[in-house]
Amino acid sequence: MDKYDKVFELAKNRGFIWPSFEIYGGASGFYDYGPMGATFKRKIEDAWRRLYCVGEGYYEIETPTIGIEAVFEASGHVGGFADPMTTCGVCKESFRADHVIKGVREIPDGLSKQELSAIIHKDSIVCPECGGPLGDVYDFNLMFQTWVGPGQKKRGYMRPETAQGMFIDFPRLLRFYREKLPFGVTQIGKSYRNEISPRQGVIRLREFTQAEAEVFVNPKDKNAHPNFAAVKDMKLNLYDEDAQLNNGHPAPMAVGDAVARGIIANEYLAYYVALTNVFLAMVGIDPGRLRFRQHMRTERAHYATDCWDAEVLLERFGWVEVAGIADRTNYDLAAHQKRSEADMSAFVPFERPMKVSRTVVTPNMAVIGPKYKGKAGKIMAALKAMPQPELNKPDIVLDIDGEKIVIERELFEHKTVQEEVAGENIMAHVVEPSYGIDRILYSALEHAYGEEMVRGEERIVLRLARTVAPITAAVLPLLSKEPLAGKARAIALDLKDKGFFIEYDESGTIGKRYRRNDEIGTPFSVTIDFETMDNDTVTIRDRDTMSQVRAPVKDLARVLGELATSDKPLTDFGEKVA
Amino acid sequence: MDKYDKVFELAKNRGFIWPSFEIYGGASGFYDYGPMGATFKRKIEDAWRRLYCVGEGYYEIETPTIGIEAVFEASGHVGGFADPMTTCGVCKESFRADHVIKGVREIPDGLSKQELSAIIHKDSIVCPECGGPLGDVYDFNLMFQTWVGPGQKKRGYMRPETAQGMFIDFPRLLRFYREKLPFGVTQIGKSYRNEISPRQGVIRLREFTQAEAEVFVNPKDKNAHPNFAAVKDMKLNLYDEDAQLNNGHPAPMAVGDAVARGIIANEYLAYYVALTNVFLAMVGIDPGRLRFRQHMRTERAHYATDCWDAEVLLERFGWVEVAGIADRTNYDLAAHQKRSEADMSAFVPFERPMKVSRTVVTPNMAVIGPKYKGKAGKIMAALKAMPQPELNKPDIVLDIDGEKIVIERELFEHKTVQEEVAGENIMAHVVEPSYGIDRILYSALEHAYGEEMVRGEERIVLRLARTVAPITAAVLPLLSKEPLAGKARAIALDLKDKGFFIEYDESGTIGKRYRRNDEIGTPFSVTIDFETMDNDTVTIRDRDTMSQVRAPVKDLARVLGELATSDKPLTDFGEKVA
Repeated sequence: MDKYDKVFELAKNRGFIWPSFEIYGGASGFYDYGPMGATFKRKIEDAWRRLYCVGEGYYEIETPTIGIEAVFEASGHVGGFADPMTTCGVCKESFRADHVIKGVREIPDGLSKQELSAIIHKDSIVCPECGGPLGDVYDFNLMFQTWVGPGQKKRGYMRPETAQGMFIDFPRLLRFYREKLPFGVTQIGKSYRNEISPRQGVIRLREFTQAEAEVFVNPKDKNAHPNFAAVKDMKLNLYDEDAQLNNGHPAPMAVGDAVARGIIANEYLAYYVALTNVFLAMVGIDPGRLRFRQHMRTERAHYATDCWDAEVLLERFGWVEVAGIADRTNYDLAAHQKRSEADMSAFVPFERPMKVSRTVVTPNMAVIGPKYKGKAGKIMAALKAMPQPELNKPDIVLDIDGEKIVIERELFEHKTVQEEVAGENIMAHVVEPSYGIDRILYSALEHAYGEEMVRGEERIVLRLARTVAPITAAVLPLLSKEPLAGKARAIALDLKDKGFFIEYDESGTIGKRYRRNDEIGTPFSVTIDFETMDNDTVTIRDRDTMSQVRAPVKDLARVLGELATSDKPLTDFGEKVA
Repeated sequence: MDKYDKVFELAKNRGFIWPSFEIYGGASGFYDYGPMGATFKRKIEDAWRRLYCVGEGYYEIETPTIGIEAVFEASGHVGGFADPMTTCGVCKESFRADHVIKGVREIPDGLSKQELSAIIHKDSIVCPECGGPLGDVYDFNLMFQTWVGPGQKKRGYMRPETAQGMFIDFPRLLRFYREKLPFGVTQIGKSYRNEISPRQGVIRLREFTQAEAEVFVNPKDKNAHPNFAAVKDMKLNLYDEDAQLNNGHPAPMAVGDAVARGIIANEYLAYYVALTNVFLAMVGIDPGRLRFRQHMRTERAHYATDCWDAEVLLERFGWVEVAGIADRTNYDLAAHQKRSEADMSAFVPFERPMKVSRTVVTPNMAVIGPKYKGKAGKIMAALKAMPQPELNKPDIVLDIDGEKIVIERELFEHKTVQEEVAGENIMAHVVEPSYGIDRILYSALEHAYGEEMVRGEERIVLRLARTVAPITAAVLPLLSKEPLAGKARAIALDLKDKGFFIEYDESGTIGKRYRRNDEIGTPFSVTIDFETMDNDTVTIRDRDTMSQVRAPVKDLARVLGELATSDKPLTDFGEKVA
């Protein structure tokens, strides 16, 4: 068993992750979160909300997981979100064409369908399953497709990212934020990717949870993040394009330096890379197994000016992307503006109103109307659109619906006026930090997983971060009988009432119960023993050091509260028990 | 404008609910939750979790929204989750057949496709849109369908309810809960229903959020809910089958009486009806516009022994179902056991081990083996399955694969032994409270909506319940300049840090800002004025009474904390300002 197998086995047995539809033989790319997993996931999401919704003040919205065709035509997903496929003529199994070829020989990324087909035929590359001949390469769109309403009139897609729902709400959001840039908006929810044949367990899912923020900013302000000072000295483990091209390694660098030296494109982008670093540490990703890798010019979306992936080291899978922070420029808003014809711009006031001169054309309608009738409107529009010098020419010839019309000078007047303009309409740029919650959850489990020998017995322990561990404290009567059990139940109930995630457990020896809680990552175990009945104190055991202190019952909520939200050692809170 | 229009208009303008895909013309049955709506929704969900996950101790799990075909074949959704449809031969528009007929004349519910077709043809009922002839009635399945992976080998469906994901996890859940009944499990998530042409705004959605609990219980214990005493005196507004049949009205009745008089089938069911009453009041449903309606025998699913809907009165739509509490018996577990062949039973120990006598058959393999070769196994199985008296008959004739085989007495021995049996395997019953979060959210908005005249001006106010209002307190400097603005910002930041949902607002007159917060349902507004700079006190304004008290800044977090989690009047917390 490698580490993935060990972690997954524990995750299954302890109610973190279960294969979906297990009684029906399962379906690859789908997993359930059991009681511990769902609680863990919810706490990770809440930690994210504390950073983005509370800290940054970016409100969360919730848009449908089913999208209509126009949205994904504009976003490019209908045309471009596809994998190159080839199907075996004998066993009818389908494969990623580039993967099959790479199994045989080296090819560069990003070859076209035609190029891949040519290689398959020229090199006689065959089906990896049965050795049969492979067919021409075709595009397989990775969106799950469905039909909205009866019949096949309205195509719908399960969204491939939560982002589009936020982009198309831009006009509403701008109004909500009272027409002022910058502002941010967030969404946590399901996204879908109809993988061809996912083979990487919980790492490659067909249905997954994303947490995304879209920060809309005036492109002129991208180097002036209002809170940049707070992160500029933070060291990040950066693996930039240069290092990747020249066989270099990731290296720690201060956020401020990375921007000053042009390594990260701008302050906004750098700020969210830094926030990602904070978030991942907060939920228990080992900083020693985390790096930020810059997208190579060749792998970047054509519109993105710069993009960084947070990558986590996993034993079986190597470096795995768990988050991406991209400067998407105005690509998305412009694409939706073009497709929908809605106004996706934002009005940005000038610091001082500007004086501009403008030509005003006044028609002599008494003449134009009767003379040109139905064409009068088009003539006026053409005159108004004309640059001022043209209007001064002695004879003006217009082309109206293919007909040349000579305009006499007495048909209109024009003059130049001075006007004050308060600002301009611009297309906001979008900086987008995007997180794959499921991968982060699994990575946190793997990084927390430990095996060790304790007095001749193997102990398995999940060293989950205190803030996100599903259960903050187990409450355990030393024996499952009165008065200990009743006292323990009362303590558990009181802590639950105060909002703590508590597990009351009375079955099995105390040692077995400690081990069970070690395996689900419970940071603290509170034990009610006979001394409790004498002096109203309990022992608190620390999962990681296994040391114990004795503390009064009346202080328990305060002590657990402080422990759960800090890194303070347990020994700060009571007398160590021998 | 009726009330729905007014509430929806406010909801749109204030960032609660937006039509989805609005820049593309929208799509019926889909709505977005804006910043206020998503926050409100999350708080409603959290209130539900406090009741079910913390209070009842029923862990939440998370299963995929896409399901494979086997699951919904077993559940009956592939075969039965359909609406009867008819399509116009001229304009090709499709309609619910029963709705079209009901537009013309009265018919009972539940007619078959054939019966509906016959009525359409006999009465010459035509297309309500264009008057064209309507075609034969056919079934339209209401699940969104898709394909998992490339090609059309694996059909998938967007789940029509979260429940099935919990049923099929029963074996895993039983192990997690250490093989003991009763236990509960919950799920909050998206479900889907491909409505034909939803025309009831936010009331009939194609994608919606359900919160469901599945409580698995030994059928023998359904009348012994461990916590029934806590709810038995609660009065519920019950509209039972009798009252419905005899033109009666809903009437208040204590939960305990309803069970004792056989109106609600059992204690478990009644307990969750009571919990639903608590929950709906908690999130702001007006108790005067709430009733619990029993399903009529004719509308109940054939397996359900009893079912109650929580119905809320809405001005445009009348009584609308927002939750259902059903005793689903062992229907779902049995259906999945049959389809999957997995063991979905639970072992229930007897109070005392029971003595049972059992017949043991011992084959004489030395003779059977050589004589019957490949059939030896089947012969032994047939003998073991035989009732003991049969084994004593002088000649035994077995039918093995169509062949009559006469078994001689020396081929086997048998004897009767006494054994101790510790318990039995039973199929658990399921009691299911199921909540439609979107309808609850809209109902809470409508019930909270108020218009009134205040000093000659109209005031619109959302009297949302304090615990679930998106913003708990607005922090407002009297003027948007220093030192008031700086002081106000510091107070807002401090309250945010302490976990409060706070909105800082400095734009516009103080009166305008009060009104804006009335419209989003903010229960309290904290105003920083010149007196604040002198003595570090602020005014707190109550949304509903508009009265104000003055309180010290240092007490603000405690005061808001108490106010937000209770019904105490603001005047308990400071000196009233004239």
